[in-house]
Amino acid sequence: MAKKEKTAISPTRVEDYPEWYQQVVKASDMAEKSPVRGCMVIKPWGYALWENMVRVLDDMFKDTGVKNAYFPLFIPLSFLQKEADHVEGFAKECAVVTHHRLEKGANGELQPAGLLAEPLVVRPTSETIIGDAFSKWISSYRDLPMLLNQWGNVVRWEMRTRIFLRTSEFLWQEGHTVHATSEEAYERTLMMLEIYARFVEEYLAIPVIRGKKTRAETFPGAVETLCIEAMMQDRKALQAGTSHFLGQNFAKASQIKFQTREETEEYGWTTSWGASTRMIGGVIMTHGDDDGIILPPMIASSHIVLLPIVRNPDERSEIMSYTHRLASKLRDLDYHNRRIQVEIDDRDIGGARGWDWIRKGIPIRVEIGPRDMAENSVVFARRDRDHREKTSMNRAQFLSEIPQILDNIQLTLYDRALNFRDDHTHIIDEKTAFYDFFTPRNLEKPEIHGGFALSHWCGSPNCESTIKNDLSVTIRCIPFDAKDEKGQCICCGAPSERRVVFAKAY
Amino acid sequence: MAKKEKTAISPTRVEDYPEWYQQVVKASDMAEKSPVRGCMVIKPWGYALWENMVRVLDDMFKDTGVKNAYFPLFIPLSFLQKEADHVEGFAKECAVVTHHRLEKGANGELQPAGLLAEPLVVRPTSETIIGDAFSKWISSYRDLPMLLNQWGNVVRWEMRTRIFLRTSEFLWQEGHTVHATSEEAYERTLMMLEIYARFVEEYLAIPVIRGKKTRAETFPGAVETLCIEAMMQDRKALQAGTSHFLGQNFAKASQIKFQTREETEEYGWTTSWGASTRMIGGVIMTHGDDDGIILPPMIASSHIVLLPIVRNPDERSEIMSYTHRLASKLRDLDYHNRRIQVEIDDRDIGGARGWDWIRKGIPIRVEIGPRDMAENSVVFARRDRDHREKTSMNRAQFLSEIPQILDNIQLTLYDRALNFRDDHTHIIDEKTAFYDFFTPRNLEKPEIHGGFALSHWCGSPNCESTIKNDLSVTIRCIPFDAKDEKGQCICCGAPSERRVVFAKAY
Repeated sequence: MAKKEKTAISPTRVEDYPEWYQQVVKASDMAEKSPVRGCMVIKPWGYALWENMVRVLDDMFKDTGVKNAYFPLFIPLSFLQKEADHVEGFAKECAVVTHHRLEKGANGELQPAGLLAEPLVVRPTSETIIGDAFSKWISSYRDLPMLLNQWGNVVRWEMRTRIFLRTSEFLWQEGHTVHATSEEAYERTLMMLEIYARFVEEYLAIPVIRGKKTRAETFPGAVETLCIEAMMQDRKALQAGTSHFLGQNFAKASQIKFQTREETEEYGWTTSWGASTRMIGGVIMTHGDDDGIILPPMIASSHIVLLPIVRNPDERSEIMSYTHRLASKLRDLDYHNRRIQVEIDDRDIGGARGWDWIRKGIPIRVEIGPRDMAENSVVFARRDRDHREKTSMNRAQFLSEIPQILDNIQLTLYDRALNFRDDHTHIIDEKTAFYDFFTPRNLEKPEIHGGFALSHWCGSPNCESTIKNDLSVTIRCIPFDAKDEKGQCICCGAPSERRVVFAKAY
Repeated sequence: MAKKEKTAISPTRVEDYPEWYQQVVKASDMAEKSPVRGCMVIKPWGYALWENMVRVLDDMFKDTGVKNAYFPLFIPLSFLQKEADHVEGFAKECAVVTHHRLEKGANGELQPAGLLAEPLVVRPTSETIIGDAFSKWISSYRDLPMLLNQWGNVVRWEMRTRIFLRTSEFLWQEGHTVHATSEEAYERTLMMLEIYARFVEEYLAIPVIRGKKTRAETFPGAVETLCIEAMMQDRKALQAGTSHFLGQNFAKASQIKFQTREETEEYGWTTSWGASTRMIGGVIMTHGDDDGIILPPMIASSHIVLLPIVRNPDERSEIMSYTHRLASKLRDLDYHNRRIQVEIDDRDIGGARGWDWIRKGIPIRVEIGPRDMAENSVVFARRDRDHREKTSMNRAQFLSEIPQILDNIQLTLYDRALNFRDDHTHIIDEKTAFYDFFTPRNLEKPEIHGGFALSHWCGSPNCESTIKNDLSVTIRCIPFDAKDEKGQCICCGAPSERRVVFAKAY
C-alpha cells in the first residue's frame, strides 16, 4: 500500500470536506470568526480578493449605465412590512435596533436606554428603503430607466454560520432598477445575470449553470429569480449570484408610479440583483486542494511571491537588491487591466515560508538564490501544479511570458472545475437511481453523494418538497439551455417538458 | 441702488447660511434626508464624489504600507466598556441591537423577538473590536508594525443632524495601527495627519491648519488627537480629519501584548485615524456660491458636460454625432491619474439645463451648436467664473489645454479659499476685542462673526470652558506652526507660551 502523502491541510477534502473548508480558510489567513456571533473578520489577504472582485464588477455594472448610490443601513419596521412575502421571508433573521443610547442601570451596569418609537431593522436587503426613494424620484417616463447599485454590508441573523458562505453580516452589492415596461425590466434582469455569469466564469474560473429558480426558491416578493449555480468539490451546489425580476410588486408596495408618454399613470417595473462575499467561499471550494486554497490569477489578491534564499549573510544585500529589481520589473507589467502584484517574503523561517504561500494560494512562487542570480535565471513553481514541480527559465523570458503563464493557470483552473462538474453531472430518469445518487456512500468510498442530477420534473411544488424532505435535495434551477424534451417527473411520473438541475446545496 | 442679481440658490449665503447649505445640497442632487431619522441617502452625483475620495485616499494609505480589512458591524457591549473614557464618550449616541428576529405579537403586529443575551452596539468606531483581533494576531515584535484600514459605515445617534456634516450613519475609513515603540506610533499619527492635510489641500482645494487638540477636545480614550481644521464661508471651522495617538490605553484595554527583541513582554502602542463623508460638506461650504456648489476638478464627480443645442430637428443627428465624437476625444485624455469624465445632456428643457449643471458644480460646461460645429470651435464656461462668461477656443486647442484649464480652476478655488481664511483670521490680544469678534453682527451687516482668532491661552481647562460657555467658541487646535511667543491668556491673563486657534465650529 502506498504511503499516504503528507498534505498541508488536515483533514483532506476526501476525509472531511466541511472540516477541510474551515482549516483551509484558516491556513490561508483570509478570514476568521469574530467574537460577535456569526460575524466574520475579513483579513487583508481575503479583503484584497474582495477588493478585486468589487473593482471588476463595478466596472462591468457602470459599463451598462448603472450608477452607485448609498441608502440607510436601517429600515423602519413599517417599511419592511410593505411587501407581505418580503417581510415573511426575512422576519426570522432580522437584527433589530430598539434603543439609541446606553445608560447605567440600578446595578451600575450599562444597559440600553432611549427606546425608539419604531424599531429599526438592520437591512437584510434594501428593496423597501430604496423603493421609498424611487417613489419620490420618479414621476415621469423621462426619469426611467433608473439604474442604481449600492455596495455595502447587510445582516441576516443566521443560526448556522460558516465563514464566507453564510454569515450574519456580509458584504455585497445590490442593484436596483426601475423600468417603464415589463419587457425592459426582464431584459435588465437577464443582462445582470449574464454579467455575474461572465464574471464568475472569466475571473473566478468557476463554470456556472444559468437558469431560473422554481417558485419555492424565488426571492421573497419577486416574480422570478434568475441565478447562476456552480458545483463545489463536495459536489454540492453554490448559488453565486441572483437577479430578480420583481414585476410591479415592490412598485405597488412603495408607490413607484410614473406618467407615461401617453400621459397615463402606471406603476414601474423593478429588478434587483446581488452578489456577495459568498463568492470567495465559492473560489475556495472550487479550486482549493489538500495543500490550501488556489487563487485564480485574474482575481488573485496578489500574483507572485519572491522568496530570496540567503544562506550566507554576506550575500544578503546583493540578493535583496536583485529581488527588489525583479519585483519592480514585474510590477511594471500589466495583466488584464491591472498591474502585476508582487510580494517579497524575506522572513528567515526556512521551509515554512514556501508552505505559507502555498496555503495562501498565490499563483506563482519564485525562489531567488545566488546561483539563479549568477545565471540570470528564474526558478518558479505554479500553484496549480504539484508543489515539488519547479521550472527554470531565463529571466528575460520569464518577464515576457509571465502574463501567458498566469493565463494558463487561469485556464487550467477553469478546465479542471468544468471537468469535475461534467464528471459529476448525470442524466437520471429512474427514481431509485435518483435516490441512490443522492444517498451518501460509506466513508471508505467517501463521495458524499453523486453531484448534479439532470432529471425531469412535472412542475408540482409537492414533488419538489417531497424530494427536499426525503433527500435534502432542491431544484437548483431550470437551466436556460434545457432542451425541450418530453419525459416523466422523477418523483411522480407525471409528464414533464424539460429537465431541471437537482442538487444538494449550500 | 443696484438691483439685486438673481441667483440660482435662495436664500444666498449672506442672507441665511444654514438654509443656503440645505438648499445648495438639494439643488446639487448630491444627497437628501431619508425617512430614517438622521440618516441620509447619498445620490449618484454625491456618491461619485465620495468614490473619487475613496480611491485617492486608499492609494495614499497603501503607499505607506497600510492594508485593508473588514471587522464586524456589531460590537458586544462588554467590548465597548473595556476602555472607560471611550465608552463614556460614545454611550449617549449608540444604536443598540437587542433582538434577532420579528414575530407577530398579540395584536397581530410584527414586533422584536429573540432577545439577545448581550446587547450589540452598532459600531460608532471600531477600536475595541479591532483591538480584540490585534490581541490575537500579535505576539512578537516580528508581527509589528500592524497597519490596517477599514472602509465602512458607522452610526452615532446624533440629535441634531445636517446632511454630510452630522448624520446618524455616515461612511468613513478608520485606520488602526500597532507599533513596538511610542516614537514609531507617534510618527505614524503624524504621517496619517499629513496625508489627510495633503489630500484636503491638493484634491479638495481646501487649505487647512494642522495641529493638536486640547485635552477637552481629544478623542475619548486617546492620549493625543491631531487634526486638520478648515474655515467655511460662514467663518466657522470644520474638522476635516483626525489622527489619534492612543498610547497604550487601548492596548491595555484589549491586551495587545508582544514579545520584544529582548524577550520581555510589552503592550503595543496604537494609533487610529479617520476621515468621512463629512469632507463632502466641507467641499460644499468652502467652494459653493449663490448659484450652487463648485466641485474642484481633481475630485469632481465629473469634469465636463456637453450641451448640444438643437434648434432645428434636422440638425439633431449631426450635432449629436459631433457631440459624441468630442466626448470620446475628451475621455481619452488623462487628468491626474484618471480619465477625464464627460457627461452629455441632450434634454430638451431650455435654459434649465445649463442651470442644472451650474447648481451641480461641474467644472466645465460646453455648448455645442451648428455654428461651433461649422467653425470647429468650442464655447465653454468655467464654474469658477461668472455664469455669463464664455470662452471660445479652437477645438484642437481646447483638447490640448483642457488639463491646464482644469488645473487652473483647481488653483483658483484653493487660492480663493486661502484668501478668505486669511481675511478672516485675526490676531487678537484684548479680551473685549475677542468677545466682540465672536459676537454676531446685525442682519444688515450679515457677517455671522469674525472668523478664526489667534490668541493666547494659558492651558487651563477652566479658561477653555469659560469661553465655550460664553461664546460657543472652542479651541480648534494648537497649530504645529505656532511660534514660541510669550503672551497673556485671552481669558484670565495668565502667562502663555503660544497662540491657539479659537473658532466656532461644526
